[in-house]
Order: sequence, then structure tokens, then C-alpha cells
Amino acid sequence: MKNFSYLYPDRILLYAVFFLAASPSVLAGSEVLTLINMLHENGMVNKQQYARLMDEIRTGKAQREDQKQALQKQLDDATAVNVSVNKGGLQVKSKDGAFSAKIGGRLQADGAWHHEDVSALGDGSKIRRARLYLKGTLFHDWFYKFEYDFAGSGGTNKGITDIWLGYSGFDHLSIKFGHFRDPFMLQDQVSDNNTQFTERALPDAFTAGRHIGIMASSNHKHWTAAAGFFGDKASVAGGSDDEGWGTGGRLTWMPFNEKRHLLHLGLAANYRQPEGQSVRFKQQAETHISGVNFVDTGAINNVENYLALGAEFAAQYQSVYAQAEYIHTYVHRQHDSDLMFDGWYVQTGWFITGESRPYTHKGAKFKAVKPDNIVGQGGWGAWELGFRYSTINLNDHAINGGELDNITFGLNWFPAPGLRMSANYVRVLASTGGSRADDEPGIVQFRGQWAF
Amino acid sequence: MKNFSYLYPDRILLYAVFFLAASPSVLAGSEVLTLINMLHENGMVNKQQYARLMDEIRTGKAQREDQKQALQKQLDDATAVNVSVNKGGLQVKSKDGAFSAKIGGRLQADGAWHHEDVSALGDGSKIRRARLYLKGTLFHDWFYKFEYDFAGSGGTNKGITDIWLGYSGFDHLSIKFGHFRDPFMLQDQVSDNNTQFTERALPDAFTAGRHIGIMASSNHKHWTAAAGFFGDKASVAGGSDDEGWGTGGRLTWMPFNEKRHLLHLGLAANYRQPEGQSVRFKQQAETHISGVNFVDTGAINNVENYLALGAEFAAQYQSVYAQAEYIHTYVHRQHDSDLMFDGWYVQTGWFITGESRPYTHKGAKFKAVKPDNIVGQGGWGAWELGFRYSTINLNDHAINGGELDNITFGLNWFPAPGLRMSANYVRVLASTGGSRADDEPGIVQFRGQWAF
Amino acid sequence: MKNFSYLYPDRILLYAVFFLAASPSVLAGSEVLTLINMLHENGMVNKQQYARLMDEIRTGKAQREDQKQALQKQLDDATAVNVSVNKGGLQVKSKDGAFSAKIGGRLQADGAWHHEDVSALGDGSKIRRARLYLKGTLFHDWFYKFEYDFAGSGGTNKGITDIWLGYSGFDHLSIKFGHFRDPFMLQDQVSDNNTQFTERALPDAFTAGRHIGIMASSNHKHWTAAAGFFGDKASVAGGSDDEGWGTGGRLTWMPFNEKRHLLHLGLAANYRQPEGQSVRFKQQAETHISGVNFVDTGAINNVENYLALGAEFAAQYQSVYAQAEYIHTYVHRQHDSDLMFDGWYVQTGWFITGESRPYTHKGAKFKAVKPDNIVGQGGWGAWELGFRYSTINLNDHAINGGELDNITFGLNWFPAPGLRMSANYVRVLASTGGSRADDEPGIVQFRGQWAF
Repeated sequence: MKNFSYLYPDRILLYAVFFLAASPSVLAGSEVLTLINMLHENGMVNKQQYARLMDEIRTGKAQREDQKQALQKQLDDATAVNVSVNKGGLQVKSKDGAFSAKIGGRLQADGAWHHEDVSALGDGSKIRRARLYLKGTLFHDWFYKFEYDFAGSGGTNKGITDIWLGYSGFDHLSIKFGHFRDPFMLQDQVSDNNTQFTERALPDAFTAGRHIGIMASSNHKHWTAAAGFFGDKASVAGGSDDEGWGTGGRLTWMPFNEKRHLLHLGLAANYRQPEGQSVRFKQQAETHISGVNFVDTGAINNVENYLALGAEFAAQYQSVYAQAEYIHTYVHRQHDSDLMFDGWYVQTGWFITGESRPYTHKGAKFKAVKPDNIVGQGGWGAWELGFRYSTINLNDHAINGGELDNITFGLNWFPAPGLRMSANYVRVLASTGGSRADDEPGIVQFRGQWAF
Repeated sequence: MKNFSYLYPDRILLYAVFFLAASPSVLAGSEVLTLINMLHENGMVNKQQYARLMDEIRTGKAQREDQKQALQKQLDDATAVNVSVNKGGLQVKSKDGAFSAKIGGRLQADGAWHHEDVSALGDGSKIRRARLYLKGTLFHDWFYKFEYDFAGSGGTNKGITDIWLGYSGFDHLSIKFGHFRDPFMLQDQVSDNNTQFTERALPDAFTAGRHIGIMASSNHKHWTAAAGFFGDKASVAGGSDDEGWGTGGRLTWMPFNEKRHLLHLGLAANYRQPEGQSVRFKQQAETHISGVNFVDTGAINNVENYLALGAEFAAQYQSVYAQAEYIHTYVHRQHDSDLMFDGWYVQTGWFITGESRPYTHKGAKFKAVKPDNIVGQGGWGAWELGFRYSTINLNDHAINGGELDNITFGLNWFPAPGLRMSANYVRVLASTGGSRADDEPGIVQFRGQWAF
Repeated sequence: MKNFSYLYPDRILLYAVFFLAASPSVLAGSEVLTLINMLHENGMVNKQQYARLMDEIRTGKAQREDQKQALQKQLDDATAVNVSVNKGGLQVKSKDGAFSAKIGGRLQADGAWHHEDVSALGDGSKIRRARLYLKGTLFHDWFYKFEYDFAGSGGTNKGITDIWLGYSGFDHLSIKFGHFRDPFMLQDQVSDNNTQFTERALPDAFTAGRHIGIMASSNHKHWTAAAGFFGDKASVAGGSDDEGWGTGGRLTWMPFNEKRHLLHLGLAANYRQPEGQSVRFKQQAETHISGVNFVDTGAINNVENYLALGAEFAAQYQSVYAQAEYIHTYVHRQHDSDLMFDGWYVQTGWFITGESRPYTHKGAKFKAVKPDNIVGQGGWGAWELGFRYSTINLNDHAINGGELDNITFGLNWFPAPGLRMSANYVRVLASTGGSRADDEPGIVQFRGQWAF
């Protein structure tokens, strides 16, 4: 019983009326009344008797009015809020939809083994993410989310992910402020619960990430637009330097947007003035166990600002899916030559079991896969095969951050909604320049995930 | 639908009885029974027929007894607990009130800009507070709160705010133990959700703060008393030194305590023997973005103990409100002269939209402002103007902590219960002595807050 | 009203049918119909009249079918989930038991005083544990727990305790993966909420603790078996070294396992290859306030692996209880002699008020004590006296970790389910070798605990 349908007050009233219409006064009454009248006509009951019978019927009616009130009240109270527990966590909704609250979270437990690693990469295990959130609705138009990641370094505000308050009282426009992701890069907009592989592709080195800011967005079936102004990360403490700030926007166009039939095209730009005029781009080899960066520019100084541009593509037909992105970043330096870095990836997937990767125009992104048949209920869950090629180049002028080409083979198993087991094999094809030149290991990574 | 009224068992029973009284046996029964009797008298149905009819009525009654049980049980189960979601978060109460649990929290997102700052104050943004709590009732007499602040430095137990268990089984007396605020200073007793300005006034340098301890309190409409014995902060780890300990009490008198008509007078004392015989008083300029202390005694050593005394005043008439406090601190040092520091503030507010600042004798403090009209439901929310003057003096003998005078202009907007947007302009009038002498900047600070 | 009984769909249906069977068509109907037929036979109503009466009865029936649907739907929705709040926290269960979620937690606030401590032990207070958890069931067969400890050092993942997902779809076998305790040592399997003394006995120096891993277990009334493969702790970050890994199992036999009548025997083994070939065994003197280790091997290097073996005993008769364990640890070193350390303890308890210490074969461990009578409801709660002797020896070959013998007297008061106040007096009888030789203090420790 995953979902409990929803009663509206008027319907309850309707029921109650129906129900009480069914109370003896009417039902029995109707036939009994008729009978009594007949018998009276036929002279089988006399005037006094008739009067007395009518009297009893009348008094009965009065009582039943009170009962009507009482019963109706109970039915209302009993269904005043709708409580549900699906996929774990719990959810409460007020009858009129004005208020709601949901408690949810995620667990991602990883293990990885490396081979042919020149530089030592430590095999091991890790709680990749352990998040809980509370989200809901206030007074119809306000919505909020409060999420914290209990995994990872306990540094100042490191664990704060999405903490924001939004207002959707305008037509086709919603505004939110707090701490959340800049509108940049499709693979960043998709929750890590729902990415096709355990780690995002190499160009994630250019992620805008989350900042304290304010954003306006407008979502439609065939296009979306979002733009915001942002301060710095929640984890950046104050001091004598001004914090960094930035601004960015994202546009998407979905000429086809039907279930199992999608074409998604997007453009995004993200501009930032970093704190202390310093920026650094780095990335691990699509694994997070050993924590070793394969490409790394180190701190680039005298940076006035930098601008990242992204182009997005995604398509889906039945149970086959493809996604690709290209990111180009310009770094403008004071009295020093500008720098250009870039990267791209293309990934494809196929659901052996016939499912597809759900997509929503709310944020123009992919959602969680739902298996058609559930393990433990006679099914085998959903099985997906995936392949990805990704590359990034952090070499320019004096900056020798390295260039990396990876391929990844992936297998995802979704035994039930909210549950996911993944096995990835990442192979570094080429590592040129940078501190890890010619280090081209293979990485086997497993993930057990539960999200709700 | 913010609140869902509450069914008591007896009333349910009453309904059920009413309701079942309405079951055909009685209703239809009464008139039908009468009719049958009449017809029998009138000789229209014979002995056998009459017997058979009576029989059917009897058997009917029996069945209906069972149904009575079944229905009643359902109605009870359906209303066994009362669940509500108002202002976000969620709340559950058992029917008899013996048990309850509420999940709530707060978000405070700040941004600040500085001008005329001699010493560089970094502009920036900050998640000032991000708290979640679980609180409730156990077995009627026990109550608990568990709150954690996810914002701020992740140091040992830094995030622990209120974590305590209480017992209120005695008349007019409640006891609690755990980690909570000493009973000292009105502006500290008022939750930071409900303070008039984004930051507390300068004398907050003398805050007693929270400690692990045990406290008894007695709250009445016209007076309150609280006293406790306290160990050290949860964030203080053990070691070879004994931890600090202290004791303190607070008395308040409210000759007038009506809605929109209040006079509050209070006295409090707080004594402490600090760990390692060392204490430090410091305060930022009523902003927390840059994190720069404007007054700071640095570590004062050889401190045997110190005693803080406070006098409280608060008054309210209709939508106008005023609050003032004076704090005097004596520091007793081993073979060295004693020290005296002090500070005071006065703040006033006026609700343009006519609301008032709710006050509760439970803890003798101000509560959250509730707007008369809500944004998104044809209203503009509540708007409040505020002004504050505050001063602190940390110069005495060899200690040159500095003296600071501030004024603050504030504007608060409460679009809906639980939501608050604040704009403050703080101006440092005079900074004499201390490391920041003659540094007299202006600070513009914004806060978006959501608390439930 | 601690518990709200549970409606099964079929029973609801049953009720509804019953209830609707009781609707006038049948009830009144039966007798009325009979009456009408009689009157018709007796020739008191004519053909036309009879036809009309029959007609009215028929139409009535139709309406009542609709009402039947509506009412049934309401009753189902009203009881779709079962919500309860007992001992604080809150719990939601779907009607069919396929889904559930519970929010709970614990608070442990300690204070300690030391005397005759040669090496200074700082008196003080501490939030020993402050945990919240979310646990529940998914799709009948999957179960999960997500727990975090907000007390203690905020280091990387330090606060992660139990975070795991399990599957129990097989007969007599359940599997779980994530972060949880190795199956080793009875006093470790028993939650710290339910241990007899505030701190575990000295051999806890050999605890296997929690790791990221996968475990299979089978629980029966008279025996249990568990075995798992484990990586490293969640708090161990990756790097160039491979992380540690281990494997272990536990067998228990309960020839007697009745309420208040138990005999428990157990054997366990735990093997581990530590990261960086280094291991350290240390333990405080059964107190955690001052944080001083009384026995400590320091880092032992060149360790290829180590193996810990444990033997468990527990017995209960009426309100008397006893528990004992012996742990032996072999440390295998590269080109260096092997090491052997060991320790054991025996503890006994007696409930003055006649309760017993509940035991469950699920995990073969003791559960929370439930007082027969509750404070605030005319009772005094449960009172328990306890005594423990424990010893550990960390001296072998060149390793001079010290040997320690302790006795502990304990008093536990359980005023109500979930609440516990403890007073312990620990006396160090002998401290030989190690850095704290001949330091034999007494420690008075208090704990206030609330767990749900």
C-alpha cells in the first residue's frame, strides 16, 4: 500500500450527506411511511394511531440531526491530515494541501579496488553520502528544504547541502533563497542518487556547486529558464577579505518531452569573482575512495574572475538513453595571460528490463528510476547497462594541470524503488601532463544506495 | 487549515453511542414496532405472524451489538493520535495528551556590506543558524528537547544547543537537566528567532550561555523564579584540569501582563569559576559576517571567579514596545586587582501594521510575532520598525578591551507565521581604547529567516 | 495510551460489511418486508399498493450500494496508516505492514568526581551521547537504520554509528550492508542504553567496533549465528595506503530462554589486517569524563594481522542477573615476536523492585529495562543494584601497556520506560606497569539518560 488517495472536504461532506440520507428516517422511513399512509387510507389504523406514528417519525428526525453533526466531525478529524510512509521516511499533508512535511534521506556505501596504479591508490570502503532532509510546504505558496550530509569532513558547514526557502505564489515563476546549486551543468542538476554512474564525469571539475544566494526559475513542459545571484559557499567563513560572488543562468529546450521519448538541449553560463583572487580546478579519476586528484591546476592566483559556459544534450527513446555535455572555462587574470580549460563527456544507457530514465521539466533533469517489478514480489527489479567516455584538459600556458581520458562501463540494479546497487569499471585511457602523467590505472567500484 | 481540533475519548464514545442509538433497531424499530403492535391490537396480524415479526426484530438487535463494537473500535483507532503540520515541521499528540512529539527547526541566511571600515571587514554571506529539533512529552509529566545547530564550526559538540529532559510532575515547579541556557539576561532568554534585531546587543559579551546542568523554575502570570547549578559547556572536553562550574538565578515581576499591555522587571545573577582560571570577554559590532571582534579583553588569567549582575526592563502598549538591560560584571583575580566591566542597551519597536510582540510568562520572555494578515492570502504580513542604542566598556586597570557605542535601525517583515525578513543598519558611534580604537564603520545586514 | 492496536484490511472489510449489512435495507427491511408480505397475504394492502412498496424498497437498495462504497473508502483512508508516539519519538506503520518509519534517539548526560588520583583527573560534566535515528521497513522485506551521534569530536564521519540497509526476504536469514558493529563481544552487542553500568568493562579495549561491511545472521530462540566481511571504519579516509579489512563471526546458544529465566553461552572470533600495519589498544578506567587512558600499548607497528577470541556467559533467574566475558587477542608481527593480551570481567545485578533484564534472541543480547510501576503514576520506577569486577593486561614482551584491576558498584533507577538515572562508584584496585603504575583513584560518576 504505497500511496493513500486523498479526501477533499467537499467529498467528505458529500459522503456524509449520502450516508445520512441512508439513515432510517429516509430509507426505512420511505417505505414505512408509505405503508402507514396506505394502512390509514385503507382504514386499518385509526386517526389517533396515525397521529402517534407520525409523531414518532418526526422526533426520530430531530435526534438524527445531532448525530449528523457528530459523525461528520469525526470523519473530518480522522482524515484531517494524510500520513504516508513510502520508500521509508514519512510524509504528512494537510487536507487542503496548504501544509506538508516530508522526512527523507540517502545512504551511499562504496567500495573500490585499483589495479595498474603507478601512484599508489589505496583500496578501501567509504560512506560516500549519508543525508537526511526535511522538506515541505507552508501556507500553499511557500516551500522549503533542509538537508544535511553527515558523511565527509566535519569542517565548518561542510555538511550543509540544500537549505532554502522558496515562494511560488506568482504564475510560472518561483523564487528561492538560501544555500543551493547554481543553475549549471545537467549532470550537476541531476541528483547523485540518479546519476547513471557512481561518480559524475570528469568535467565536474568545472562544477559551480552550491552557494548562498537567490534564484528565480520558470519551468514549462518544453522549456525552462533559471537565473540567480550568489554569494559564497556556506563553508566559507568571513574575515578581512570580501567573500566571492557570482551570477549564472541556464536555458533548456525540450522539443520532445513525453514519457520514454525525450530530446533535451541546454545552454548555461556561470560567472564568478573568487575570494582572494584565487581559484583551483581539480578532479579525481571518477572514483572517490582513494581521494587522489588525477588532474589539478593547483591554486591559480591574481584571478579577477572566471566564466564557465556549458552546452547540454540528452535524448531518450524507449529504454535507450544518451547524455552529453561540453564545458569551456575562461579564467581572466590580472597582468597575466588569460587561461582556457575545457572538458566533455558522452554517456549512454540501456535498460535490459525495459524501464526508462524518468525526466522532469521541473529543473529540466532526470529523476529516480522505478523498476517495473520488485524483488521480493516475484520480480527481478530493473537492470541497466551503461557506457561513458569523458575527457578534461587542464593544461594551458604555464598551468600544467594535466589532461585525462576515461572510459567507464556501468551496471545498475534497482531491486525496488529507492534502492540501487551499482558496479562500475573505470579505465584511464590517457593521462598526459600534470603530476600523474602516464598513470593509467583501472578502478572497480561498487555502491549500495538507498534513497527516499 | 493550520490546526486540527482534538477529540477526547469520552466525546468519541458519546458520538458512537448517539450514532448507534440511531441504528435501525431504535429508529425504524420504534415506529415499526408501534405499527406492528397496533396492527396486532387491531387484529390485522395474527398471533403467529406477530411472534415471527417480534423474533426478527430481536435477532436484528443481537447482530447490531457486534457492529456497535466494531464501529466504535474503528472510530477510536482512526482518531487515536492527532497529527498536524503547521508552519512546516510536524507534530503528533496522543489522544490523552500523555505523549507528544514535534519536529521543527530554523534557517537564518545572512548577507552584510560594510563601509568606512578602517580595519578591513569582509563583505559576505553566511548561514547564521541551521537547526533542527525534536521535542515532546512523555508519560504526561516528562518533557524533552533535542536540538542541534548544523551551521557554524564543526568542532567538538559545538553544534549542541538545547538537549535536555525535564519533569513537571510537581505543582508550580519544573526541573530539567541536560544542556541549556543559564537563567540570565532577557535578550538571551528570547530565542534568536524572536529578537528584534538580527544580532543581540553589545552586552551579550557577558552572556552566561549554555552549560550542562540542572535547573528548577517556577512560572506564574505575574512572577517567575529560576535557579540552577551548572558544569561547563558541552563543547568543553575533559582533561587534567577540573572543568569550570557555576550557579545562577533569575527573578522577574510582571505587574501588568495582558495581551498588548505588559510591564516586565527582572533581576539576575550568575557566578562562575572558569576552567584554568582564565576568562575572556569579546564582542563583534552586532554583526557576524566578518567575524571581527571590536571589543576584546583577551584571556584574563588568575581568575578565581566572576560574578555578573543584570537588571531587565521591558514594556509594551498596543503595538509599541521597549526593552532595556544593564549588566555589570566583577572579575576576582588571585593576587591581582579585581576588574569591573559593564554594558547596557535600550531598544524600541513599533508595528506599522498594528501587531504586538507576544510575551509568555513561561520563562518570562518574548515569543514569535504572528502577522494579522498573510502574504498570498490578500495580506501584507506584519511590518516593524526598530531602533537600538547599546554600549559596552571592557577597559579596566591594565585590561584594555575597548569601549564601543552603537546605534541600530531595523526593519522586520513577517510575511507569514514562521517567516521573517530583516534589514538592519548598524553604525558604530564611538570606539575608544582597544585594538580597534577610532574604527567606526557602518554595516548593512540582511537576514532571511524561516523557523517552525 | 502508549500503544494503538492495529487494523488489518480484511477486518476493516469485515466491519464495513457487518456495518452495512446493518443498513436499513436489511434490518428494518427484513421485518418491514415480512410485515408487508403478511399484510398483502391478509389482503390488507392491494396489488397496486404492494407493487409500489416493493418498488420503493428496490430503489432504496440501489442508493445504499453507492453509500457502501463511499463509507468503506473513508474508513480505509482514516486507518490507512497507524501513527504512534510512545516514549517520545514517533512511529508510522502502513496498514499492511509493508512500510514503517520510526524516529528515535538518546541523550546521556554525565558528571564525574575523582579522588586519590595521583595523575590529575579533571572533574567535570559531559554530553556522553546525543543520538537521533530514523529506522524502518520498506516493501516488507527491506529494513534500514540511519543513526548519527551529535556528541563527541566532530571529525570526519566520527558521528556515524549505525547506517545500514538490510534484506530479510529469505527464511531464517537476514543480510545487511552499511556501517555497523562486527558480531563480537556481548557487552558490545548490548546497546550502551542498556548496559548495566555507565561504561563498559575494561576488556572493551579489544572491541571490534563498527566498520563498513556486509553481514549475514540467523536468529533462533535457542541459538544464533552471525558472520561478516568488513572494510574499515567510516571515519577512516582513503589515501595511498589500502584501508584495513577484517572478518568475524559469533555463535550463541541459549539452552534456557524464557522471560526471567535465561542461560546464554557464546563464542566469537574477529580477525583484522589493520591499515598501515599499525594497531593500538587502550582503555580509560571505566569513566569517560577526564579522557585519560589508564592502559595504553601505544602504536604497535609491523602488525600483519591480529585475532581476538571471546567467550560469553550470561544468566538470569527472576530479578537476579549475571554476565561474564573473557577476551584473548593475538597480534602477529612481521619479523618480530607475536604478542598476547587479554582481559575479563564478571558483573551481577539485582532488581530490588522485582523487574528483570529483558533479553532478545534477535542479536542474542539484553534490551531496555521496563519498570513495573511508573513515577508520576503512583509508582517508584525500577531500582537495580550492581557489582562488577574487571581486569585487563596489556603487558607483553617489550610492550608495557599496563595491567588494571577495577571494581564497580552501581545503582540504576528507571523512573519510566526510556528514562534512566545511574550512579557508579569505580575503584581502581591495582594498576601495574604502564605509564600510570600505582595510580589507583576512586571515581564517582552520575548519568542521566533518556532513550526512545
